[in-house]
Amino acid sequence: MYTSGANTDRSRSGASRAFALAKTTWKTRENSDGEPVFDVDGAFANVIRFGNRLIGMTSDGVGTKIEVAERTGVYRTLGWDLLAMAVDDLAAVGLEPACLSNILDVDRIDSDIVEELMIGLTEAASFARVAVTGGEIAELGARISGYGPKMHFNWCATAIGVAIERDGPVIVSGRTVNTGDAVVALRETGFRSNGFSLARSILEKKYGFLWHEAGFLPDVTWGSALIEPSKVYCRAVVDLVRAGCPLNGIAHVTGGGIPGNFGRILKLTGLSAELESLFPPCGAMDRLREMGNLSAKETYENWNMGNGMLIVLPKDAVRHAIEIVAAGGFEAREAGRITAGRGGIRTVTIAPPTGPEGKLGSPLIFENPDK
Amino acid sequence: MYTSGANTDRSRSGASRAFALAKTTWKTRENSDGEPVFDVDGAFANVIRFGNRLIGMTSDGVGTKIEVAERTGVYRTLGWDLLAMAVDDLAAVGLEPACLSNILDVDRIDSDIVEELMIGLTEAASFARVAVTGGEIAELGARISGYGPKMHFNWCATAIGVAIERDGPVIVSGRTVNTGDAVVALRETGFRSNGFSLARSILEKKYGFLWHEAGFLPDVTWGSALIEPSKVYCRAVVDLVRAGCPLNGIAHVTGGGIPGNFGRILKLTGLSAELESLFPPCGAMDRLREMGNLSAKETYENWNMGNGMLIVLPKDAVRHAIEIVAAGGFEAREAGRITAGRGGIRTVTIAPPTGPEGKLGSPLIFENPDK
Repeated sequence: MYTSGANTDRSRSGASRAFALAKTTWKTRENSDGEPVFDVDGAFANVIRFGNRLIGMTSDGVGTKIEVAERTGVYRTLGWDLLAMAVDDLAAVGLEPACLSNILDVDRIDSDIVEELMIGLTEAASFARVAVTGGEIAELGARISGYGPKMHFNWCATAIGVAIERDGPVIVSGRTVNTGDAVVALRETGFRSNGFSLARSILEKKYGFLWHEAGFLPDVTWGSALIEPSKVYCRAVVDLVRAGCPLNGIAHVTGGGIPGNFGRILKLTGLSAELESLFPPCGAMDRLREMGNLSAKETYENWNMGNGMLIVLPKDAVRHAIEIVAAGGFEAREAGRITAGRGGIRTVTIAPPTGPEGKLGSPLIFENPDK
Repeated sequence: MYTSGANTDRSRSGASRAFALAKTTWKTRENSDGEPVFDVDGAFANVIRFGNRLIGMTSDGVGTKIEVAERTGVYRTLGWDLLAMAVDDLAAVGLEPACLSNILDVDRIDSDIVEELMIGLTEAASFARVAVTGGEIAELGARISGYGPKMHFNWCATAIGVAIERDGPVIVSGRTVNTGDAVVALRETGFRSNGFSLARSILEKKYGFLWHEAGFLPDVTWGSALIEPSKVYCRAVVDLVRAGCPLNGIAHVTGGGIPGNFGRILKLTGLSAELESLFPPCGAMDRLREMGNLSAKETYENWNMGNGMLIVLPKDAVRHAIEIVAAGGFEAREAGRITAGRGGIRTVTIAPPTGPEGKLGSPLIFENPDK
């Protein structure tokens, strides 16, 4: 479906209208290759049939995290962010990411920077077992702006994933989520590629224009803390599906945070969730919350707060699932459970963990954003 | 492969290095869905296997033609340009475009403009029988710039095409081009989505900053002349393949013009071509050539000069092919022929047609850009 990087009513409404128009084109592929066969309502990848395969196709970009690279001169890791944004949206439907094509819009090419970007993308793609099958570099002059004197750019990608075959193609739609299911969280220790507007505004208020040079820890600047690359979770999902683990729903926690992305799944069944054992947020998020005097609600709606992917599965499959993803190098924990809807009020209940500075507060009720 | 919108050594070298890195990721898909099985050397779509289908995936953007939309306020037709740039690169390998995902980067969403853009994209996709299966709208603030006070944006897309089955999947690689083959041109009456830097610099020199308001014809401004939407040729190619027409090579004439794009095909076999009956350039190109005092070589390397797609096929298939594409509403003509390579010097010989203002000059020899 159409998604919007910015989590505002304005952009959601634009995306939703664009999606309605886009859907009118689907009938042109009726009974042909390329036919969308499964509108994963509200998800980030539709499922399309080509011959005897079901595939998904997602597009996303690195967004304004690029400014952090421009500030720190660290370009090597942005490819992990780009790849994660595109392929983990496919993993959120249970698909195995297979190919990626990327578009790099620049003001004027700096080949050293392009090299750094592409090395990072190649590393990330090799890790995720995704073939980078194409790309486009466009010099757009003054249409592209950014921080500092070096090359400015925007970077986006489209990835294709394929349904894994196990007695038929596996699609994790979220529609089979049940009361009593467990929720397993995969840990994230950085910002992934969203929530930078809020982070930047807090840092700029506190440290001024050169906030990236200010110290976050004795040997770590704020710039370094924010550039930490996204974890790429897709292999964890692929391993779970291949092992026959019965996945009922998956949320990739990006713009909109847990309420926006996990809320999408709950909306499908009208169920609720209690997530009282999430991973704690990384230190930078915790410090920013304090500096910005943010409520827990604000932080959870803007940042991943330490949890980059949430997986819903039957309670009795939790231990095996955590072992499987741990074998792949991912840190996972049982973070909560699915509960019955209450009087039609669909809510996400999140009890923020005790962070380094102490308890954030009582359990929170977020109204489902799409309710 | 990696392509670059700008036809400069700098951008070609960046694209070529990026492609070399990208190729190192292909082995991760060995014997799996998503495996690139056919590197269409120098072409704009690699061929990838998913189950029992071969597909291609291409990415491209509208580039700086967007400034013409910002100047004229005409947004409705840019979707034709976007679609054409993505899907006609698939058609250039003989694939049938099936799905498209698009990414719209904006400074701040203006929902009226987004609506115009998406209506145009939907119209173009319906015409081309392509399903718009997804998209992303990203608000990037000051990273995106442009002309005038309204929403600024960049717009790119990735399309998937599928090989049509006729005793096996049809792929038009260019490797079967033969001496004596005919070259059929499909007419273009606008600029498509490239060559605007050169056009703009000529117009600005002549008319100043508000060049788009200057008159090209009594009732047509230069802005209107330049915004003319791209023709979308893919259905012509699909009709030819389905009719069993033996296509040996196809060039989509975009950045780099006929020398760059048709030259790519000639490079594969080392053959040459004589194109003495191309369509004449549209009036705006002809006038700009005169105003800018450009050589024919410069114009053919920057603009399509009236020929948006060139198709190589056996001489005896020409009449049938022209009938087929005419039935689909496309204007086509036999524009020349493939000739033997001369002493290893691979050249494209182009005799520019007599334009409205008289003969452009003698036949030109362009050295193959990749020689």
